[in-house]
Amino acid sequence: MEVIGINSVWVMLGAILVLFMQGGFILLEAGSTRMKNAGHVAGKTIFTVGIVSIVFWAVGYALIFGGQGNAIIGWGDYFAFNVTGSSADDTVAPSVMFIFQLAFAAVSMSIAWGGFAERAKLSAYLIFAVLFSVLVYPVIAHWIWGGGWLSEHGDQDFAGSTVVHLTGACAALAATILLKPRIGKYNKDGKPNHMPGHNQVFTTLGVMILWVGWFGFNAGSTLTVEDGSFFGFVAINTQLGAAAGAVAALLVAWAFMGKADVGMMLNGALAGLVAITASCAYVDSWAAIVIGLIAGILVFFSIRFFEKMRIDDPIAALSAHGTAGIWGTLSTGFFATPELVEKLQVGNPGLFYGGGFGQLGVQALGVVTCAIYAFAVSFAILWVMKKTIGIRVSEEEELVGLDMSEHGTYGYPEQLSAEIKKSNLPL
Amino acid sequence: MEVIGINSVWVMLGAILVLFMQGGFILLEAGSTRMKNAGHVAGKTIFTVGIVSIVFWAVGYALIFGGQGNAIIGWGDYFAFNVTGSSADDTVAPSVMFIFQLAFAAVSMSIAWGGFAERAKLSAYLIFAVLFSVLVYPVIAHWIWGGGWLSEHGDQDFAGSTVVHLTGACAALAATILLKPRIGKYNKDGKPNHMPGHNQVFTTLGVMILWVGWFGFNAGSTLTVEDGSFFGFVAINTQLGAAAGAVAALLVAWAFMGKADVGMMLNGALAGLVAITASCAYVDSWAAIVIGLIAGILVFFSIRFFEKMRIDDPIAALSAHGTAGIWGTLSTGFFATPELVEKLQVGNPGLFYGGGFGQLGVQALGVVTCAIYAFAVSFAILWVMKKTIGIRVSEEEELVGLDMSEHGTYGYPEQLSAEIKKSNLPL
Amino acid sequence: MEVIGINSVWVMLGAILVLFMQGGFILLEAGSTRMKNAGHVAGKTIFTVGIVSIVFWAVGYALIFGGQGNAIIGWGDYFAFNVTGSSADDTVAPSVMFIFQLAFAAVSMSIAWGGFAERAKLSAYLIFAVLFSVLVYPVIAHWIWGGGWLSEHGDQDFAGSTVVHLTGACAALAATILLKPRIGKYNKDGKPNHMPGHNQVFTTLGVMILWVGWFGFNAGSTLTVEDGSFFGFVAINTQLGAAAGAVAALLVAWAFMGKADVGMMLNGALAGLVAITASCAYVDSWAAIVIGLIAGILVFFSIRFFEKMRIDDPIAALSAHGTAGIWGTLSTGFFATPELVEKLQVGNPGLFYGGGFGQLGVQALGVVTCAIYAFAVSFAILWVMKKTIGIRVSEEEELVGLDMSEHGTYGYPEQLSAEIKKSNLPL
Repeated sequence: MEVIGINSVWVMLGAILVLFMQGGFILLEAGSTRMKNAGHVAGKTIFTVGIVSIVFWAVGYALIFGGQGNAIIGWGDYFAFNVTGSSADDTVAPSVMFIFQLAFAAVSMSIAWGGFAERAKLSAYLIFAVLFSVLVYPVIAHWIWGGGWLSEHGDQDFAGSTVVHLTGACAALAATILLKPRIGKYNKDGKPNHMPGHNQVFTTLGVMILWVGWFGFNAGSTLTVEDGSFFGFVAINTQLGAAAGAVAALLVAWAFMGKADVGMMLNGALAGLVAITASCAYVDSWAAIVIGLIAGILVFFSIRFFEKMRIDDPIAALSAHGTAGIWGTLSTGFFATPELVEKLQVGNPGLFYGGGFGQLGVQALGVVTCAIYAFAVSFAILWVMKKTIGIRVSEEEELVGLDMSEHGTYGYPEQLSAEIKKSNLPL
Repeated sequence: MEVIGINSVWVMLGAILVLFMQGGFILLEAGSTRMKNAGHVAGKTIFTVGIVSIVFWAVGYALIFGGQGNAIIGWGDYFAFNVTGSSADDTVAPSVMFIFQLAFAAVSMSIAWGGFAERAKLSAYLIFAVLFSVLVYPVIAHWIWGGGWLSEHGDQDFAGSTVVHLTGACAALAATILLKPRIGKYNKDGKPNHMPGHNQVFTTLGVMILWVGWFGFNAGSTLTVEDGSFFGFVAINTQLGAAAGAVAALLVAWAFMGKADVGMMLNGALAGLVAITASCAYVDSWAAIVIGLIAGILVFFSIRFFEKMRIDDPIAALSAHGTAGIWGTLSTGFFATPELVEKLQVGNPGLFYGGGFGQLGVQALGVVTCAIYAFAVSFAILWVMKKTIGIRVSEEEELVGLDMSEHGTYGYPEQLSAEIKKSNLPL
Repeated sequence: MEVIGINSVWVMLGAILVLFMQGGFILLEAGSTRMKNAGHVAGKTIFTVGIVSIVFWAVGYALIFGGQGNAIIGWGDYFAFNVTGSSADDTVAPSVMFIFQLAFAAVSMSIAWGGFAERAKLSAYLIFAVLFSVLVYPVIAHWIWGGGWLSEHGDQDFAGSTVVHLTGACAALAATILLKPRIGKYNKDGKPNHMPGHNQVFTTLGVMILWVGWFGFNAGSTLTVEDGSFFGFVAINTQLGAAAGAVAALLVAWAFMGKADVGMMLNGALAGLVAITASCAYVDSWAAIVIGLIAGILVFFSIRFFEKMRIDDPIAALSAHGTAGIWGTLSTGFFATPELVEKLQVGNPGLFYGGGFGQLGVQALGVVTCAIYAFAVSFAILWVMKKTIGIRVSEEEELVGLDMSEHGTYGYPEQLSAEIKKSNLPL
């Protein structure tokens, strides 16, 4: 009983840290967008976490881990999921495992919102939150973590570079394509305008909160304490991945733009964290640094690529979670060590350790199938919504800002009301 | 020794999370008030936590748990409370229990400040912090948690819907009645004006921090880890209560006001959390959702009620902590299950489980007596203070703002100094 | 195995809390400086944490704890530090110990940045982060915690009043002397101008985050859980020290300035925390209050002293971390109790417990030698940097602000661009 008790305390701490990441998303998203949308952007996080929680309790968890499932989907144990008990062969109390998994689902959802920012209707958030939490996230999570077909192939995704981050980013991509760019983002000749977020202290603090929360994400995913050395090792790799990503993105931005862009550096830290999420338990610490460095470089070019492609991605979700999620998932195909694969009993060592291309192929298969599924289903849902209820606010509402148009009051009433009185113009 | 060690780590984590809730109050209160008062509103939290901590160490803990007490009040073990030891029959190390309880007392105090916002003198905070921490909070806490008369009746208040939230809200009610509404809140004909807080990103992040801290509050209150399944279950109910409260309040506000008010949704999340605080360990998860939903609906109408009654409550403390605290305490009288009552050995099952009206009566008795005591003593203290030293700043000071009048500098000096230069008027 | 597992969970929680303190520094520093520098001040924390992490992994940890070292410096176990294993006589898993120590090194670095604020070049941060993490911090940490010569003398510095806080403050002092005051801080006649930070909600929340993080810092430094009573006791002393510091500084500021300055109170809370850091495990709780009170008073006069000395210290790092760090280290020489010294097996009881002047002398020796070393090496590094690459931005860049000059965009683009359009002047 004591061992499961210790493990449960550890995983519960992990769950709390991952839930706290929502505070990071509130700040990251609000800071990356404009003042007239700040209350909306921040506030929608609260009720969407609410929706995801209730849906996950009702069906989400069952669709991932339900005992009557098959290789494609879990089934059974809805609502009535037995949360009060535990059996002798549990590593962690099932109730704690449930809240840990719920927190992951909520993170994937919050990543997806990046593609909706500053122009989607509030009702679109409501409906998509339900459908994403039923039709998209649980399927991917089942495939890789719930005993589904990718787990049978030995897909290595320790804490969710694919399951959580890539899935959320693919939904964000579907949304941003269907919503089209924000007013003013692109000139008629297709040239992008810089639309900076309104508060870099918020974005920076948001990234720091996410960074800290990631110890729950990655080290918590060990699910077991044992003598503490393995979750500590995973934490070190997490720290090094984030560190390398931040430094790399800063230097690349400095070199290519002539200025050490703060936003790029923050996205570099996130990209490092996202990339090390799949691999943190499979690779040596030097490799964690390499993975983070590459993620930090990739995120810089990925952001510029999407901007050129006229894909408007205000929070850089596609690059920080999508591109880095792909790289992170693939990275174990290169760097997974025989000792750690032996310990975790998932898949095979990577290319650089004599494992050949086998594991890399499995990782690529996971990336491609999950990305296609998450994108296609999200796109289909949003396409139907667009054709029926509509997903974007009117031009006038967007110009006034979503705080006023969707919620009836500014998030910064003193500052914006004064501005507007002076200018006689919507901000 | 290992069991008490594990339990102590868990409860210490709980204590740290509950202390971190002060960060949530800083943001919630500052975001809900105006720019000219922001430094004051945020900063007073720090020194009042300081005062509460020292008073709790000196006498507060003794008045709750002191071994020479009776049914009305604890007594003995002042200062000299033996913090370095622990005995074989302790569940948690006494030193850890002390810091956990201290954190709860500080939360109750911070709730009470809601009623003081934007018009009370700094000296009123200083003095009331001492007197509330000696005369009000410990008495209620002793009655229900310290072996007092309500605990003998089997009052079910697992983590403090009454002890912490209703107590704080009753002090806030006394304060706001004696202080009278802020200048400009009501027109001469009694019609209320909307006085929105200045920063919804702050309020939203504040609620998210409180939400996360609540896992320490509720799940930490199990005080024991065992196999982890029970504290995990309490955490799930906490999450579902908050989720339901947020969604319910959003939808109600949308339906009744035509706009999905962000502030209402945030108060809905808080109301769900406050309501589930008493009941989280006594009810099934579906009931947690129902309790949260009702709390989210109640808080909406409660806020409108108090506003119409000309009771100026800038942080909505009366509704989010008071009304929801009452509902949460009563809710076990309806929903407490026989299995969980059996496990916790407190009181009886609720009305919906064949327990009759007995437990509901006990819960109502707890609500009424605690509310009367907390309100009456707070009112008496503040009435004497009002008649002697005064509790409200002058009209001029209020118009200038408390940052300047009580602390000598704006909390946002660059923004407000520029505004004032332009307008030649106090903000 | 279970005992080391429990200890590792506890120390990992400590590490996470100490890493989260970086969020506190982001807010404290950004809030204490001006809007035109906010993105820079916040953002530089992220990449410097990145640099410190990688350097600490490569060499820092080895220079503190490396097994082939001597009384002056650790040596050996670079990179290859065996993070995956643990042996039967470990109290904590080495990997967890590593991340805990890394977090401390990053805090010392962030304290040092206080002396660089609002005028240092970005490249100076990059280079000094590397050199401080190799040449300064590990040496002091080895002397006191790594088995170095001061630990052989029985120097009592439980969680780092000297190792972390005084070291960081000495580097800040070297930086602020070499950088010279900010433009506008002093008039030609030497009179200082008040240059308030732009956001007291940020500074207040920052201090609250640091306060909460300090439970990881101090109580985590027990490194062992046992029955929980000792780390709980350390947590109580930490809470009381912070509380007393906040209240004392508020009252002193009120008495001497006529206004209850918010910033002074926040620095009082920090000073109380810094002072109790060395002594939290060596003194009774009443002494923790006395130590905090004195720290709160000292910090007030120290801030005024440095301002008069024309030493420009925007974040009050010299006073809150330096002066209070000295007092905290000396305080065990007065207050260390025989029982706690016996328990910890470090040094001797203090003057007030019949221990004579012996321990006070050791503490003074530690303060003097560490302060000289940290200041001298930091000064030498920065002096060479100043003479070669330069460490301060140009006057024009400083007037425009570092957000624009070092990073190419404002941290608050909407607010500052509007201001600048109106004024035709750099803010």
